[in-house]
Amino acid sequence: MDWKALLILSIINVIYVMIGGAIFHALESSNEDNTKATISSEYATFLANQTCVTADELRTFVQKVLAAYDDGVFSTDTESSASLWDYGNSVFFAMTAVTTIGYGNQTPVTSGGRAFACVFAVIGIPLTLVMLAAYGTKIQKLLSPLEKKIWIKNHVKVDKVVKTITLILAGFIAFFIIPAAIFSSIEGWTFGEGIYYSIITLTTVGFGDFVIGTSDSDYRIPYRLLTAIWLVLGLSWVALLISDVQNKYTGAFDKSKEKEEEDKKE
Amino acid sequence: MDWKALLILSIINVIYVMIGGAIFHALESSNEDNTKATISSEYATFLANQTCVTADELRTFVQKVLAAYDDGVFSTDTESSASLWDYGNSVFFAMTAVTTIGYGNQTPVTSGGRAFACVFAVIGIPLTLVMLAAYGTKIQKLLSPLEKKIWIKNHVKVDKVVKTITLILAGFIAFFIIPAAIFSSIEGWTFGEGIYYSIITLTTVGFGDFVIGTSDSDYRIPYRLLTAIWLVLGLSWVALLISDVQNKYTGAFDKSKEKEEEDKKE
Ligand SMILES: [K+]
Ligand SMILES: [K+]
Repeated sequence: MDWKALLILSIINVIYVMIGGAIFHALESSNEDNTKATISSEYATFLANQTCVTADELRTFVQKVLAAYDDGVFSTDTESSASLWDYGNSVFFAMTAVTTIGYGNQTPVTSGGRAFACVFAVIGIPLTLVMLAAYGTKIQKLLSPLEKKIWIKNHVKVDKVVKTITLILAGFIAFFIIPAAIFSSIEGWTFGEGIYYSIITLTTVGFGDFVIGTSDSDYRIPYRLLTAIWLVLGLSWVALLISDVQNKYTGAFDKSKEKEEEDKKE
Repeated sequence: MDWKALLILSIINVIYVMIGGAIFHALESSNEDNTKATISSEYATFLANQTCVTADELRTFVQKVLAAYDDGVFSTDTESSASLWDYGNSVFFAMTAVTTIGYGNQTPVTSGGRAFACVFAVIGIPLTLVMLAAYGTKIQKLLSPLEKKIWIKNHVKVDKVVKTITLILAGFIAFFIIPAAIFSSIEGWTFGEGIYYSIITLTTVGFGDFVIGTSDSDYRIPYRLLTAIWLVLGLSWVALLISDVQNKYTGAFDKSKEKEEEDKKE
């Protein structure tokens, strides 16, 4: 790509992100103001009702609770957060690091843990990518018989579109719709939250606002094992799809470049 | 890659993650227990000292504070978190979505915001990848004169190693050491935390335990603009490096496969 094309692409990216920012701002800011107002009034009410507590004492206490919460720990007099760094959770954490999902609902807080996380991710990420790419190729091969079954006579272009849509739809059902249904029923999420979780996870964005298997349960280990399989296959499939779209985009840019060059020659 | 090689690769990945999990468990779990014990005793102390507050009342209040904190909002009687969804922060959020960093210190909480985040990420991620790949190629080209200057006479192998190390070192200084020094001085982090932040960010893991520019400041906009440039160039460079390592790994697997086939022929 020449510098001119890269400049245009960069401008498109900047505009895309700026418009996105405007839409997020429009969708989220009033809700944020409400939450802020609600929590401020909760604060005031608590202080007004509990006259033995000074504002300073409450503030100090809340700050301590929040600092622990930042490290993934919360506790009240009756309940305490599930163990973050038991072996099962630690393995799940390691998996989110090498897949670059990085939910961040649980992060290393010791210097040693942080240093190790860096080394572990740097070595593990390419290793995982090699595996995901290999599974992606396998999935593609396994799907090719399905692709051959679809054939719209005398309509090569329509046939190609139908094939592409069918494959994407099949993958979407297998890696998003069905897992979202399962996750939402197990985690007590709405189906929409399950879809949101699946998309944010398999694109490796991994905000960490929804994470499966955080509550203590007898089924946590088999559940997380199944999730691990979903992750590997789903990430492979999405990586394949993203790289296809990436190639389409790159192709579009190269075409416009070629056209430009042709125009210059004329 | 044939199924056998993929099986071996999968086993290596599983072992890698399982050993990683064991190390994270060893490094983090005792610290977690301490934090839990501390916060439990803070709870007990507060309840013991403030006799007008019942355990129920405090629990209800803390749960409300934490629910708001989950949405990125915290508030005490004197201070309140900086505006999450002002335009600047919303653009920064949009950027973390399309780069798949997804810090998650700030996430959409409305249904509309979540639905839009999915669409926005799915379209934006391949677009961003195209741009990052293009910048990666440019960086590689710009570095090639530097590469030519290094030349160890009569030592082709040593020369190659020295070249590779020099390039990686130069990139590491430009994208990690210098930014980490700047970030740590501005954000009040230790230098180690700055390095940790830079590595977790540019590998797109994005735990979100450290995020730059979250405090209100007059310099937030130019600071974040410079950070955006660092992100684009740094992500390009790291993506290049990761894909190089990925190719090396894949090559190693193909070689072992080739060797096996040769062995069979003999
Ligand atoms: K991520
Ligand atoms: K993340």
